[in-house]
Amino acid sequence: MELWYTEFQTPNVGITCKTKKTYHTEKTEFQDLALIETEQFGRMLVLDGTVQTTIEDEFVYHEMISHVPLFTHQNPKKVLVIGGGDGGAIREIIKHPSVEKAVLCEIDRRVIEVSKEYLPEISCALNDKKVEVLVADGIKYVKENKGEFDVILVDSTDPVGPAVGLFAVDFYRSIYEALKEDGIFVAQTESPFFHKDLIKSVYRDVSSIFPITRLYTCAIPTYPSGYWSFTMGSKKYDPLETDISKIPDLDTKYYCPQIHKAVFALPKFVADLVK
Amino acid sequence: MELWYTEFQTPNVGITCKTKKTYHTEKTEFQDLALIETEQFGRMLVLDGTVQTTIEDEFVYHEMISHVPLFTHQNPKKVLVIGGGDGGAIREIIKHPSVEKAVLCEIDRRVIEVSKEYLPEISCALNDKKVEVLVADGIKYVKENKGEFDVILVDSTDPVGPAVGLFAVDFYRSIYEALKEDGIFVAQTESPFFHKDLIKSVYRDVSSIFPITRLYTCAIPTYPSGYWSFTMGSKKYDPLETDISKIPDLDTKYYCPQIHKAVFALPKFVADLVK
Repeated sequence: MELWYTEFQTPNVGITCKTKKTYHTEKTEFQDLALIETEQFGRMLVLDGTVQTTIEDEFVYHEMISHVPLFTHQNPKKVLVIGGGDGGAIREIIKHPSVEKAVLCEIDRRVIEVSKEYLPEISCALNDKKVEVLVADGIKYVKENKGEFDVILVDSTDPVGPAVGLFAVDFYRSIYEALKEDGIFVAQTESPFFHKDLIKSVYRDVSSIFPITRLYTCAIPTYPSGYWSFTMGSKKYDPLETDISKIPDLDTKYYCPQIHKAVFALPKFVADLVK
Repeated sequence: MELWYTEFQTPNVGITCKTKKTYHTEKTEFQDLALIETEQFGRMLVLDGTVQTTIEDEFVYHEMISHVPLFTHQNPKKVLVIGGGDGGAIREIIKHPSVEKAVLCEIDRRVIEVSKEYLPEISCALNDKKVEVLVADGIKYVKENKGEFDVILVDSTDPVGPAVGLFAVDFYRSIYEALKEDGIFVAQTESPFFHKDLIKSVYRDVSSIFPITRLYTCAIPTYPSGYWSFTMGSKKYDPLETDISKIPDLDTKYYCPQIHKAVFALPKFVADLVK
């Protein structure tokens, strides 16, 4: 018998993966959670029927949400991740020697626990001494911590269910206030092919708050359309002015200094979304 | 009743698309051909069970296989497309005012005919007076036409069935000889996630023949992994030295001067394939 897991990424298109094993399923306080083994991508975390991360391609997302803003800042000491309970962004953040403290603020305790159990390659840094793990509402947390962070990453699920508030203009204002005076934030903002309206509205909202707003993209096979966007709001540093000759070589598989600026060069139909 | 078309892109992962209608299916002399209507991507041409092109995302592939080499050359007059019977690359090529003649050499007459009937948005330039359409074996054709072309595009299917010979080092030698002394060629070379060995071997073969060899990539939702590569062999012009300020604004949706060089900036795991 063959078992295939299919995610319908829109009502009209899906990705289907041959599975070997289901390690775990549960209904948490916030969402349906599944941890399965796929033939193509290895272990896969699925929330509310949507692929969150897989062993084979997680490096793209986690490196790209982290290193682009951290190397744009150049001297980040205190970094906050909202969401991201699998720990992948945290793992990348603590590769930066300047980072003294990385805070993870994840609303669903079970995402952290299941990732620690089944995805050790991704969650491995959650026990690092520089890392503080909070099970809390990110929206409330940023409101309560003003002027605290050099970089904030919004590593959220799709804008449905628990993550809706993480795509709202009020939240971006709170993030602005939670950042230091030269702070930077990045949010994952879905697919340029399938979520054009979302990218437009987030970019417009972030632009209304931050002096520097930039969109960048990368290729992620297990996410809808395989093409993904991130929106950056920055108070002072422009990623297009980063001196890439000063970027050290980290242990990465996707990010490298040579793509730091190139990822902001957008195909015409994407550039048109943020004009 | 819902009908879904699934392409298994590898033995372990597939893309599945809700379909509205099947316009046409046949077994041609060379391959199985199907023309279907999908909800997400509109009309779709499928050869041997593999998505070739769709109305919604065809612009990416056709613009990127064409404009990158043509603007690297800067004054292409005579251009050859091997394969590409849907006519999409030809449509992009004749947007260049310098082009005096574009030759399409497609082995399967039925691909051309079905594309003319069902994909007029893509095949629209095949009747242009600058265009010559040949139903012939591309391998034989390039051997018989030496020193003729400024640019040659290898717009092939995957390296199985009729296209196997289009991924061979002997073929690249014939292409070198079919080009003028400052000629450029580009071949589609599959997914950096799923076809690493192919990309490596084509790059090595092309490097052994052409003084300048470059790999570039783009995002194509309906192709395996959503991330695609092209390999360029060039006798004289380096795309990284193109003066992009001289590139005119064409009617495109993906290609623009701003990405002409950025698409050659490769993620680390892709750059490692062509070291």
